Amino acid sequence: MNAIKTQEKFRVPQRLLGIEKSLIRQVADRALPGSISFGLGEPDIPTPDCIKREAIRVITEEQNGYTLQAGILALREKIIAEYPHLNLTTDDCFATVGSSEALFVALMTLVENGDEVLMPDPSFPAYPGIVKMAGGESVYYRLPKQIGFGFDIDEFKKHINAKTRVAIILSPSNPTGRTLSRDELKEIAEVLKDTGVYVISDEIYRDLYFTDERPASISEYYERTLIVSGLSKAMSMTGWRLGWLAGAPEVLRSAHILHGYDVTCTNTISQKSALIAFSEEGQKARSDARRIFKARRDLLVSLIASELKLPAISPEGAFYSMLDVRSLGDEMEVVEKFLKNKVVTIPGKAFGNESEGFLRLSFCASEEKIREGVKRMKETLEGASR
Amino acid sequence: MNAIKTQEKFRVPQRLLGIEKSLIRQVADRALPGSISFGLGEPDIPTPDCIKREAIRVITEEQNGYTLQAGILALREKIIAEYPHLNLTTDDCFATVGSSEALFVALMTLVENGDEVLMPDPSFPAYPGIVKMAGGESVYYRLPKQIGFGFDIDEFKKHINAKTRVAIILSPSNPTGRTLSRDELKEIAEVLKDTGVYVISDEIYRDLYFTDERPASISEYYERTLIVSGLSKAMSMTGWRLGWLAGAPEVLRSAHILHGYDVTCTNTISQKSALIAFSEEGQKARSDARRIFKARRDLLVSLIASELKLPAISPEGAFYSMLDVRSLGDEMEVVEKFLKNKVVTIPGKAFGNESEGFLRLSFCASEEKIREGVKRMKETLEGASR
Repeated sequence: MNAIKTQEKFRVPQRLLGIEKSLIRQVADRALPGSISFGLGEPDIPTPDCIKREAIRVITEEQNGYTLQAGILALREKIIAEYPHLNLTTDDCFATVGSSEALFVALMTLVENGDEVLMPDPSFPAYPGIVKMAGGESVYYRLPKQIGFGFDIDEFKKHINAKTRVAIILSPSNPTGRTLSRDELKEIAEVLKDTGVYVISDEIYRDLYFTDERPASISEYYERTLIVSGLSKAMSMTGWRLGWLAGAPEVLRSAHILHGYDVTCTNTISQKSALIAFSEEGQKARSDARRIFKARRDLLVSLIASELKLPAISPEGAFYSMLDVRSLGDEMEVVEKFLKNKVVTIPGKAFGNESEGFLRLSFCASEEKIREGVKRMKETLEGASR
Repeated sequence: MNAIKTQEKFRVPQRLLGIEKSLIRQVADRALPGSISFGLGEPDIPTPDCIKREAIRVITEEQNGYTLQAGILALREKIIAEYPHLNLTTDDCFATVGSSEALFVALMTLVENGDEVLMPDPSFPAYPGIVKMAGGESVYYRLPKQIGFGFDIDEFKKHINAKTRVAIILSPSNPTGRTLSRDELKEIAEVLKDTGVYVISDEIYRDLYFTDERPASISEYYERTLIVSGLSKAMSMTGWRLGWLAGAPEVLRSAHILHGYDVTCTNTISQKSALIAFSEEGQKARSDARRIFKARRDLLVSLIASELKLPAISPEGAFYSMLDVRSLGDEMEVVEKFLKNKVVTIPGKAFGNESEGFLRLSFCASEEKIREGVKRMKETLEGASR
């Protein structure tokens, strides 16, 4: 035995240095009992009966052992049929533990030390966290607040350079609920053409839209794309952990290996039940969810205007609005006051610099609760105590 | 925009270079229709009824959204109660996507570039795969075949040096089914004392034992331990993806953050149903499984002796035996002949150099199938064709 170095204190590894619990969780976890939550991004409407029924059948009648690491073939057939323009085979996708694992595995497969990953500001805070773990550097393209967090091609373009390895596209957006138009997606594809940059297209909110047309996928215009998606949001299946990664075959091969070492496979009962999500019943459940969230959006946006008299984004998808509280001073102070008065909201700076001065409001609550929540916000702003 | 470097070919990242599908899967996936499988390590007996009933209740009656990233509190209380000697709090463990994710996250949290991870030869091939991804180097302590793949403290000790970051202990062992005695665990603890080395104790087979006493945990003798475990093997819940990581609090904090970015949380229905695994009914299901596997072990070992007339390990736990085919020439040729005659076995070299010349036989098949499988092996060896 050679000389031994005693390491009394745990050495946090380089890849995890400085990564903390997200500000979203920090705020949401402090909710007082009886709070109305505009906090977490999780549908409150129940998982559709068709999914539950199938899960019960599968548990009762079938053995539920490991599946192939990629997931059951029937599910992969449904997944690739979502992207006919890509001509994928069932080897070019795999089922994941929610879209979280799809994102994690995609970034860990594409990004190495020194690579730059271009991502929107504001956006989902897991992006820079995972990029850091992969050894990469996060570079932001602003979605300017002056244009309602819309897309600005010049902002996007100016950050592309020889170190850019990945560009993340998120539409509909968390936290803004804004979607990218077909023209904007074409502009992005045009800019990226021949750069070799991979796009990770986070489409977890794609089936929650309030426009006439379903939002398009960048993969329709740019082939070098990995699609991150799943059933959590549109099918109220967050706890079922069913997502997928699909796209660029050469990347999928490596990502699949990492996925196998990470989790072996995702839950078998969820995989089998997920088949129903692609049936007519499943499509109806999605459209029911859209109707519910659209009504809530309309209610929330109109109450903000009439009661709070503050500017806010009327989103085109997802279930978030951005409330502009810049006229009220420091956003964290507003969040704290709301928390005290039993309303949970998330400070915009949890999502980037561009959204400072805004609060993300999720409308994953009944219309009754939305009314009560806005009432409490109004009282708080008027200085009334409860 | 600066100069753009076109990257036409996908660059496999350093962390995934040279990592391929395991030899276990490569062989098992080639099974002919109608094969008897001594291949994969997956219980064929059904998930216990008490678990299924609870899962159906949970799906029917409850909303199953995200849990805390660490998992539901009630489950974490059950988990820490398994290790009373460690005085853990519910913050010192979290539920994972099977023991796979627990292992992945533990190694990614402990291992950095240049670290050495000491692991048994033979053992589970995911260990060196994940160590590679984490930037570490795998170093092996032989479990010498001359002593039936038993433990040799001098072999263990001689590889410990200032670069040793982690030592992996696996008892009962995959692929040998051997367990470590309390005296051996004490010897290991003595050698590691004051070295600062973390132990990862893979206890996924701990509840599958054929001895009078349940195998001990190294954590009873060495505090700087992370326990990797789960319900997959002993409760026939492989597809449910329910495992855990528990132990050294300072490491768990960082590992928990990585876990959150990786998968958010494991399946909610599985977490809730898992509570039943710790009830009297759950304990009975485990002891039923032990009885079944013990009878199969006795049958397989006796048939190998009487029919094949080859040496083999009679395991103390798990559900694997090692068949010594060194007298028959190259192990891969034997595996190929068996495959052709519809019997799946796994070549020992899938698990390390020490087990070359052996085949791993899992007894995750009915006694009838075990009889038929041995019959086919016998015919193959006698040169008979079917």
